[in-house]
Amino acid sequence: MMLDNPATKYRPFVGVDLPDRQWPNRRIEQPPIWASVDLRDGNQSLIDPMDQERKQRLFDLLVKIGFKQIEVGFPSASQTDYDFVRSLIEGGRIPDDVTIQVLTQARDPLIDRTFEALKGATNAIVHVYNATDPMFRRVVFGVDKPECIQIAVDATTRIRQRMAEAPETNWTFQYSPELFTTTEMDFAKEIVEAVMTAFGARADNRMIVNLPATVEVATPNNYADQIEWFCRHIKDRDALIVSVHPHNDRGTGVAAAEMTLMAGADRVEGTLFGNGERTGNVDIVTLAMNMYTQGVHPGLDFSNITPIMREVEHCNQLPVHPRHPYVGDLVFTAFSGSHQDAIKKGMAERRDHPEAVWAVPYLPIDPLDVGRSYEAVIRVNSQSGKGGVSYLLEQEHGIELPRRLSIEFSQVVQEVADRLGHEITSQMIYQAFVDEYLAKDSPFKLVGHRLSSEPDSPRVSLEATIEENGDHRTIQGEGNGPLAAFIKALAAAGHDVEIIDYHEHSRGQGADAEAIAYVEVRVGDEAVFGVGTDESITSASMKAVISALNRHFSTRAPAPNVTADTLA
Amino acid sequence: MMLDNPATKYRPFVGVDLPDRQWPNRRIEQPPIWASVDLRDGNQSLIDPMDQERKQRLFDLLVKIGFKQIEVGFPSASQTDYDFVRSLIEGGRIPDDVTIQVLTQARDPLIDRTFEALKGATNAIVHVYNATDPMFRRVVFGVDKPECIQIAVDATTRIRQRMAEAPETNWTFQYSPELFTTTEMDFAKEIVEAVMTAFGARADNRMIVNLPATVEVATPNNYADQIEWFCRHIKDRDALIVSVHPHNDRGTGVAAAEMTLMAGADRVEGTLFGNGERTGNVDIVTLAMNMYTQGVHPGLDFSNITPIMREVEHCNQLPVHPRHPYVGDLVFTAFSGSHQDAIKKGMAERRDHPEAVWAVPYLPIDPLDVGRSYEAVIRVNSQSGKGGVSYLLEQEHGIELPRRLSIEFSQVVQEVADRLGHEITSQMIYQAFVDEYLAKDSPFKLVGHRLSSEPDSPRVSLEATIEENGDHRTIQGEGNGPLAAFIKALAAAGHDVEIIDYHEHSRGQGADAEAIAYVEVRVGDEAVFGVGTDESITSASMKAVISALNRHFSTRAPAPNVTADTLA
Repeated sequence: MMLDNPATKYRPFVGVDLPDRQWPNRRIEQPPIWASVDLRDGNQSLIDPMDQERKQRLFDLLVKIGFKQIEVGFPSASQTDYDFVRSLIEGGRIPDDVTIQVLTQARDPLIDRTFEALKGATNAIVHVYNATDPMFRRVVFGVDKPECIQIAVDATTRIRQRMAEAPETNWTFQYSPELFTTTEMDFAKEIVEAVMTAFGARADNRMIVNLPATVEVATPNNYADQIEWFCRHIKDRDALIVSVHPHNDRGTGVAAAEMTLMAGADRVEGTLFGNGERTGNVDIVTLAMNMYTQGVHPGLDFSNITPIMREVEHCNQLPVHPRHPYVGDLVFTAFSGSHQDAIKKGMAERRDHPEAVWAVPYLPIDPLDVGRSYEAVIRVNSQSGKGGVSYLLEQEHGIELPRRLSIEFSQVVQEVADRLGHEITSQMIYQAFVDEYLAKDSPFKLVGHRLSSEPDSPRVSLEATIEENGDHRTIQGEGNGPLAAFIKALAAAGHDVEIIDYHEHSRGQGADAEAIAYVEVRVGDEAVFGVGTDESITSASMKAVISALNRHFSTRAPAPNVTADTLA
Repeated sequence: MMLDNPATKYRPFVGVDLPDRQWPNRRIEQPPIWASVDLRDGNQSLIDPMDQERKQRLFDLLVKIGFKQIEVGFPSASQTDYDFVRSLIEGGRIPDDVTIQVLTQARDPLIDRTFEALKGATNAIVHVYNATDPMFRRVVFGVDKPECIQIAVDATTRIRQRMAEAPETNWTFQYSPELFTTTEMDFAKEIVEAVMTAFGARADNRMIVNLPATVEVATPNNYADQIEWFCRHIKDRDALIVSVHPHNDRGTGVAAAEMTLMAGADRVEGTLFGNGERTGNVDIVTLAMNMYTQGVHPGLDFSNITPIMREVEHCNQLPVHPRHPYVGDLVFTAFSGSHQDAIKKGMAERRDHPEAVWAVPYLPIDPLDVGRSYEAVIRVNSQSGKGGVSYLLEQEHGIELPRRLSIEFSQVVQEVADRLGHEITSQMIYQAFVDEYLAKDSPFKLVGHRLSSEPDSPRVSLEATIEENGDHRTIQGEGNGPLAAFIKALAAAGHDVEIIDYHEHSRGQGADAEAIAYVEVRVGDEAVFGVGTDESITSASMKAVISALNRHFSTRAPAPNVTADTLA
């Protein structure tokens, strides 16, 4: 089927008329007020929304990065969000210079519930919205323009009242005319001005007006035109903090944010790495680092970006793409020989003139500035090394690391690279894997084993011979399967090991095929990985347990712990 | 460590002075000439560059989508590329209306080698480049401006000569001043005009001038200003096809392409889903579908976008992100209740007025237009169903499907959804998995097995009882491990099965833990998946083989084959 002619089904976006627009003559010279909506817009778009623990980790990370405004949920719509807001406030988890923000619909009981959730907060933004877009007014809510304005004004009045009743909190009021970009501009101006009057917004009592591109529907210059038009036409611009909230349906959310800042916006709502409904919210990491490369400090700290990415991946359970600007695994690499050559010349020039403005071919930013390294570039640039550690192991060695193990191992490789101080080859990466997981053969070794089972019974009897500190021991166990029996046999011999995770797969095909098993086990208080290979799937799995035991008892550094703490 | 103050290390980009720019007043009203650089820029940025088979698949896919200009490689720099170009030409793989393009450096022996590679081509673009950026001139090549121009002119002269010597080919000439966006605009104009003269470019003998943002260094309005400036200042605009080549280092490649088209560009070089050096080239899928939603037919066919994505993922061995516009797994979903409610109302309105312009809340495009469905939206919207099939199975059922199996199974689920015609729940997805892989118990069944092995030997003896068409049979085999022994035993019983791939992992922990094994096996000419679960890792793997055998003999539809053919 060929795509139908779209001309009957879709219409070009009609922008606001602004032939004397000024924004294309401007550049961004200072950072906006950053507002993270990771815990609200981001969270509500997840396949598996965050639990309290993940929410807390993400909140702490946002604080550490330097966000001063963090939308933490929609407490009137979700008990989980309500509980989280309470735990933040009651647990004293919010620094004094950080303001939490919560979203509410424009309905009295929900507004009241929102203020209950915020009771005792030091600083809070109450963010209310209603739909002003004509299609929403007609199809979804069945209201006319005066009714739409009345909803916004009534909610504002009630919020103003509730704020006055709780003077112990430092309140900020925020209003969003929803789907601003598809609302008639005259009507957007009219409803915002009505809200401003209801709230009593003045230059010394400013409110936030957030003008969202709830769905991105046009090339980003149109959003910029609308923001500039709004800032030039609204009655009392000084009484407002103008905020934008770009989405990314057309893949141009970052451009839209940049151009709306040039057009006069003061504040940006977005998320780390662009999580959010559908195609996501605007990515604040990219926005901030884009400013940084133009000499403007964003006021957010992404100087060690990889652990931030890992932590966000953990919280969202969504990957960051290998080509994601500034952080993707492949963005500080060049595989082409001519690119590599040019980078080398640029690096040499830089060594001679370290005080000069950054100018290295194909590297728009110094990798060091985000905690990546020259070594990383050179390593992946090397002729023999073909890339990302996990990918390389899979492509060239048939080793498919489970996710958590791949994170641990990439740090092992980094340490090797740091120690050597020069290029690390593909073969060296493989050798590091062997050394770390496969070659540790003391204090334990699997000498052999004998299995027996009966038909019609899942039970397996195992007799295994292990070497322990040089002595041979025979151990015995029974279990539902050989791995379970081996764990039982080890326990009977005084070694308590609990399987947390187990993966196994084939490497190669036909006569050369072997199995490789990965286990994550708990030994005492430590979670430790082990790997085993063998022609037999059962022997491979037992060897993996032995590998984990040896690593537990070895003098290696503790397993890298990928948490917010690694940001320090 | 906090990010350093960047003001001493980085400088803001200084754009071209164009206060009377016209592009922000325009919109895109017709598609550009599309040129795919997937097989060149895309390929050279891969961890694992494509082999001939993957190159051919991607080329065929690009043709099928409707590309008429396809850059197929850098034959003078790579023997693999040379061989691929020859195989395309000699194998008659290039439709008459498709023009292949090859890149060459501006050096005589490389130009000659390029023409050797193209011998016998019906239509070909010879694309030569040299670096015009001042930092490259100084640091990388050590040439002044006249020398830089001479390199370009000499190469153009030689190419013109070689073209004249092979009149059987319909030639097009393309020149790129490399890093156009960081070249002084006056110098870019000067060198392009010198090249035009050397080539003899005229309105009836047009050449392509490609003006790349080799590295994206500024907000995209700057690129648009430069293109408009160039189009307005170049001596003989009518003698040129002006091409842009945006990269995505600042995450604004799509916006840059759109704005440069508004500014006067005729042609866009990019890749499917934005593969390419570092952060990638501009994504042509997003660009094309953005036009489509504005009523402009892009002239490319993405009406069945999911198989295109799978095929590109196979060729590039890189994932497309779940939030990628128009195609990501999550972009036609809404998890928020209010969003779901609005979408339902919009869908109902549309059923009543199918002739109206598309206007459904939160859906900038009709999912049907890219081969996705309302069901898909509703399925993932359902209260119980929490998302992407694989993710759901992993999160709620601890089932981690290997990649290829997950592709097959997502189609199984889609068929179930299509058959039911209404929402499909999480539990139904799990049930579909059980029905498809775990519950098929004829003609074969594993009744029981007995294993024995000796210490110090990898050999395992297996005696298994299987049920075959209702009859019990005892089969025996030996091998290096129980799975190998089972395959041997089946072979001795007349069932030849070859293991292509095997994965196994634990589900749950402690007393409830069990193993789940996935095998892909070859039976006769068919590759077929099977899945088995058991407390014992060995039993699970054998059951997986039995499952594959049963699926091979069942009357199910052939395994969905994710190739370019599925696009039809």
